[in-house]
Amino acid sequence: MRRAARLSALCIVALTSSALLAQQDPLPSWNDTAPKSAIVSFVERVTNPASAEFVAPAARIATFDNDGTLWAEQPIYVQLEFVIDRVQALAAERPDWRTQQPFAAVLENDLAALGGLGQRELMQLLAATHSGMTTEEFRATVAEWIATARHPTTGRPYTQMVYQPMLELLRYLRANGFKTYIVSGGGVEFMRPWTEQVYGIPPEQVIGSSGELELELRNGRPVLLKTPAVDFVDDKEGKPIGIERHIGRRPVMAFGNSDGDLPMLQWTMAGPGARFALLVHHTDAQREWAYDRESHVGALSAAWDEALARGWTLVSIADDWATVFPD
Amino acid sequence: MRRAARLSALCIVALTSSALLAQQDPLPSWNDTAPKSAIVSFVERVTNPASAEFVAPAARIATFDNDGTLWAEQPIYVQLEFVIDRVQALAAERPDWRTQQPFAAVLENDLAALGGLGQRELMQLLAATHSGMTTEEFRATVAEWIATARHPTTGRPYTQMVYQPMLELLRYLRANGFKTYIVSGGGVEFMRPWTEQVYGIPPEQVIGSSGELELELRNGRPVLLKTPAVDFVDDKEGKPIGIERHIGRRPVMAFGNSDGDLPMLQWTMAGPGARFALLVHHTDAQREWAYDRESHVGALSAAWDEALARGWTLVSIADDWATVFPD
Repeated sequence: MRRAARLSALCIVALTSSALLAQQDPLPSWNDTAPKSAIVSFVERVTNPASAEFVAPAARIATFDNDGTLWAEQPIYVQLEFVIDRVQALAAERPDWRTQQPFAAVLENDLAALGGLGQRELMQLLAATHSGMTTEEFRATVAEWIATARHPTTGRPYTQMVYQPMLELLRYLRANGFKTYIVSGGGVEFMRPWTEQVYGIPPEQVIGSSGELELELRNGRPVLLKTPAVDFVDDKEGKPIGIERHIGRRPVMAFGNSDGDLPMLQWTMAGPGARFALLVHHTDAQREWAYDRESHVGALSAAWDEALARGWTLVSIADDWATVFPD
Repeated sequence: MRRAARLSALCIVALTSSALLAQQDPLPSWNDTAPKSAIVSFVERVTNPASAEFVAPAARIATFDNDGTLWAEQPIYVQLEFVIDRVQALAAERPDWRTQQPFAAVLENDLAALGGLGQRELMQLLAATHSGMTTEEFRATVAEWIATARHPTTGRPYTQMVYQPMLELLRYLRANGFKTYIVSGGGVEFMRPWTEQVYGIPPEQVIGSSGELELELRNGRPVLLKTPAVDFVDDKEGKPIGIERHIGRRPVMAFGNSDGDLPMLQWTMAGPGARFALLVHHTDAQREWAYDRESHVGALSAAWDEALARGWTLVSIADDWATVFPD
């Protein structure tokens, strides 16, 4: 009886909130322009059992790029800010870094040199800051950093540099039975400590780049050690591969903002039945940043052309988003 | 109003079924011996918000080995039966196999030679049967095979060689808010086509061994090609690594039957708070098979010793399971 009473109470709450929600606009930060109607129309069709485009709840998989799609990626990727802060924090123990590139450039805050870093130098910085510790130690370091670090130009915590319209979209899709995933070129262990709190996306629904792990016994207790070896790069062609490895089914909806997302969008759209692909175009120099084809971060060129050719949904931040960041 | 009425009706159904379920034994195929009480007592403690051992629903992760834990692995692993059948099916196109080992042994059904296959020969057989096609083609082949293949000694479909007590346990844990995962040394793409139907475990909750994939455009349509290169071996030390890569949090409960599962159980038990580890011991030569330390398949030796030393739950099939296979 106590159990039944508790469930009844829950049901009343559920009835009340669902009635309230039905009256509210689930996407208030989206202007009433084409992208919003395209999203709502698609979701209504695939969730309507009477529709020819109905998709069973278990197959409702939506994948989101992170940098530039769910949160800002300018002036540099947030994970690179983390790398810089970690190099500075660790420099006291590594006096050799003062005269050794690429570490010297980071310690002298030489933005020109940092902007020109090649793949090899970047991997050196990643190895120095993302390996040589256990997964638990790294998680604690990231959690502490994300709680205190601030964006270099806005002064906001990075967790407030997320896009309010996308937070609403994630919630709206989940309310309609979608499982929401992050599929990012960023490090999976850099994202998981905060994605649940910030996006409502649990660690097991975060797919990203990763380094090799090694199991080690420390005083008889197993730990997982992060090594400098690259295991997987979840970018470009890596995104469909990461999706197949982790999810094992093709997404129904995919969201990105750059050429690195193109293979994920192509993979999503190549399946049978109803499909939805969306690209965020950074057009708002006032409220965010304006960049695309020529940008050194998040270049949107081939993917833009393909979106236009195939009629995928293109979001212009300046035109389609009423609000960009949370209050 | 229509929506509210529908939800009310659903709530009434939910109330009625939960009241009925509460009266029923959720584990009828388990004898009333120590393992069953240990499972039920653990689940009641971690799901009771008033208990010091309460575990939040999001953290309720339970991982299961597959071969020998969820379904039978004797006389040889089921996936090896699939390999044998595929080699025979493909032999018409490969006349060279008749004189070439290890293929000749398979085609001649030379069990002695098959039993003595080394790692290199096994990899040759896997490469010949698990690569050179798209993920979609492989999925269709597995789905067709599992629907028609029969166990060599019982004549049952393999999907009926699953353990009824474990099916009940999976349902019981999910009804108590657990996410159930498979963490198997078997191939992830060999399992995913049927685990949802057979175990109620969706593809995204299946972790296994995998080969490298390559994205290829075929007439402008992207496909994922299965290559012979090994990506990941999800056995022994690989199990905690696979769990960390895919789930990103430590399981609360882990279930296995062999030394290959020991690192997963150690990893699970090394976390803080309430933890549960269980090993299935194959003791029933009448209803299943009896084997452990000396077996060429599923040897249970070091894990058994550690289970005894640490007080983990040991299931003896002969003593603790009232029913082994579904009717």
